[in-house]
Amino acid sequence: MHTNMLTDRDYHKRIQIIQQKVRDKGLDGVFIFANEAEPANVRYFTNYRPVFEAAGIIIPRTGDALLLIGPETEALAREHSVIKDYKKLLEFRESSDPDYPDIKQDTFNDIFKEMNNGEGIKLLGLIGTNIMSVQVYEGIKNALPEATLFKEDGLLREMRMFKSPEELLILQKAAGIAGKGFEYAMNRIKPGMTEFQASAECMYGVYSHGAEGTGFAIWCVSGKATNQAIGISTRKVIRKGEIVQISMGVMVEGYVSSFGRVLFFGPMDPEVKRLLKTGLTANAMTHDLIRPGVNASDVAVQVYDYISDQGMGDHVVYGPAHGIGMMECEYPFIETTSQFIIEEGMTFAVDTFLAAPRYGMRFEDTVAVTGNGVNQFCNFRREIINL
Amino acid sequence: MHTNMLTDRDYHKRIQIIQQKVRDKGLDGVFIFANEAEPANVRYFTNYRPVFEAAGIIIPRTGDALLLIGPETEALAREHSVIKDYKKLLEFRESSDPDYPDIKQDTFNDIFKEMNNGEGIKLLGLIGTNIMSVQVYEGIKNALPEATLFKEDGLLREMRMFKSPEELLILQKAAGIAGKGFEYAMNRIKPGMTEFQASAECMYGVYSHGAEGTGFAIWCVSGKATNQAIGISTRKVIRKGEIVQISMGVMVEGYVSSFGRVLFFGPMDPEVKRLLKTGLTANAMTHDLIRPGVNASDVAVQVYDYISDQGMGDHVVYGPAHGIGMMECEYPFIETTSQFIIEEGMTFAVDTFLAAPRYGMRFEDTVAVTGNGVNQFCNFRREIINL
Repeated sequence: MHTNMLTDRDYHKRIQIIQQKVRDKGLDGVFIFANEAEPANVRYFTNYRPVFEAAGIIIPRTGDALLLIGPETEALAREHSVIKDYKKLLEFRESSDPDYPDIKQDTFNDIFKEMNNGEGIKLLGLIGTNIMSVQVYEGIKNALPEATLFKEDGLLREMRMFKSPEELLILQKAAGIAGKGFEYAMNRIKPGMTEFQASAECMYGVYSHGAEGTGFAIWCVSGKATNQAIGISTRKVIRKGEIVQISMGVMVEGYVSSFGRVLFFGPMDPEVKRLLKTGLTANAMTHDLIRPGVNASDVAVQVYDYISDQGMGDHVVYGPAHGIGMMECEYPFIETTSQFIIEEGMTFAVDTFLAAPRYGMRFEDTVAVTGNGVNQFCNFRREIINL
Repeated sequence: MHTNMLTDRDYHKRIQIIQQKVRDKGLDGVFIFANEAEPANVRYFTNYRPVFEAAGIIIPRTGDALLLIGPETEALAREHSVIKDYKKLLEFRESSDPDYPDIKQDTFNDIFKEMNNGEGIKLLGLIGTNIMSVQVYEGIKNALPEATLFKEDGLLREMRMFKSPEELLILQKAAGIAGKGFEYAMNRIKPGMTEFQASAECMYGVYSHGAEGTGFAIWCVSGKATNQAIGISTRKVIRKGEIVQISMGVMVEGYVSSFGRVLFFGPMDPEVKRLLKTGLTANAMTHDLIRPGVNASDVAVQVYDYISDQGMGDHVVYGPAHGIGMMECEYPFIETTSQFIIEEGMTFAVDTFLAAPRYGMRFEDTVAVTGNGVNQFCNFRREIINL
């Protein structure tokens, strides 16, 4: 239990793989960006995740990868990062823009000059472009006025989309902790509690069972707020006769499982029961339909058609499943417009969310595609839990 | 307890104030950006905070403010935002870049065209520039090819730097919850526990006492890791004879208090005791020195000189206090290079952090500058806690 499942070697191997892709593409290197809200890109190669600050990695076509951090995380990076070579740049400092009069900073200019045995960088791929900050992007452009920059998120996406046996074990562990944490909380949440208090029970449940973090702030919402695709717990009091929705993404070694369940106290309105039953049937269908060789859009269309036949087509916000791994939600997405074949080694959050005007529901679980179907990492109480 | 201390009127008043600043500066509007890791800029005007996604606000020189959200947070924004007029833009979608084939999106183009009674925007101020994503920035630039964009973070900074009586009450409440949560955890943390488990006790402590969130993931680190200015709990087991450092930032109504304490189990090495005593003296000095009319750099220099006289000058990473409010760390910073006079209504985290090579320590508390000194919002066990 006290050893990481991923070794330094696993991280170094990932660097080698993307370095080969850089050479195959004819690039001089890639720059990979991550921030506190979305640390996955950097953690995938280093096991380091930025807190408060942003972070980056430069992987040149030849030579060693370099970690870029802000001024305050030096001790943290030294302890956690597999890449031991790092530089501190003001562009990665925390969002409040401190001055750090006493800390020596490096510059993109000096860093790029030394890359590729002093040949520098003329063609640079960028990864993490959708979250990259303007100041980092402009810092790079100013340091490389002659270079051409390409959006190359795909290079990393194609790596992260398929999980190794170790990654699958970690995700399975994360899913198991979510189930145990939920069971702990379920036995404590009662009408009369605030959503905050209920969330506290969930948090204690998952952290005391071994979570290292959560992919997002756990939410426990009730009543009308259950129709929020993305929720935030509030100080609203949970009452009998309303849907209580719990969503949590448990993190282990940087990998996030996703877990959603509904609790209900007291007598249930028939319309609510019909929503929940429709959701559960759509959820079971999705678990059945995901298998290797299947067209992703076929899964989405069949699930959507079923929900639509129940008169709830307008309750659908997004497709029935999304990729999951170091991000709670990542490529590939199973949508009606998806254009990919499901393959062994992919992992999905089967995420059945229906938003009616006055309430909503979500059942969510993490699965891995096997040779002939899916491995359901946690199926604890995937049912109407009426307490 | 179940009512927010800030009313819709308070938020609308803030919008009016910045709109007046926009006019005074001769701008046609400001665009304000926030993301999940740093929601403060948007929450300050709306009470809404983006989760998974980013968010923005456009405040034109005349007419109503407009909230910009991503495709998945419509129900959340409708519930939480004080600004009821909103648009959904793909540029604000979550970091995994979903497609959302079924959701109708708006565009920057259409939005800007209608601003200022159809006169549009020629001079636009930008706020939140240090975290702004490239895709949002370029979305704006492409929609306003003729406009001039200015970095105007200062407009908001000068508003947020001074706290109203309501804001002070909220921060005081957040600080009180941190103290109570720490007391709860302190009575449960024991040698033999992992840092994860200890953090779980802290989390339960603050959430069960009324926290709505935390300004950063609470950390409880031990041994060598205590010299990390920014820490992350790990599965390391806490042992007797090593420093245990707890840092937590408790959020209430979007405002974050900051709280840091050291726990110690068993006999203490004299060198460790000297570090802690030096830190506590520097901490008390800082509390004494911060008062209205004082030059901020004088505070920093005096505290630094004291620490340096103890032979620990090289243990200092940053100045003795930083602004605090909707961000756990925000302007103004008390550094040796600071150029401002401390004034009533400012709030600071007195943040004494010393990083020795093999361990470190932090004492941290939230204070408000009053007419003649500071109001210490929480001073629970600001001492060497040897259990």
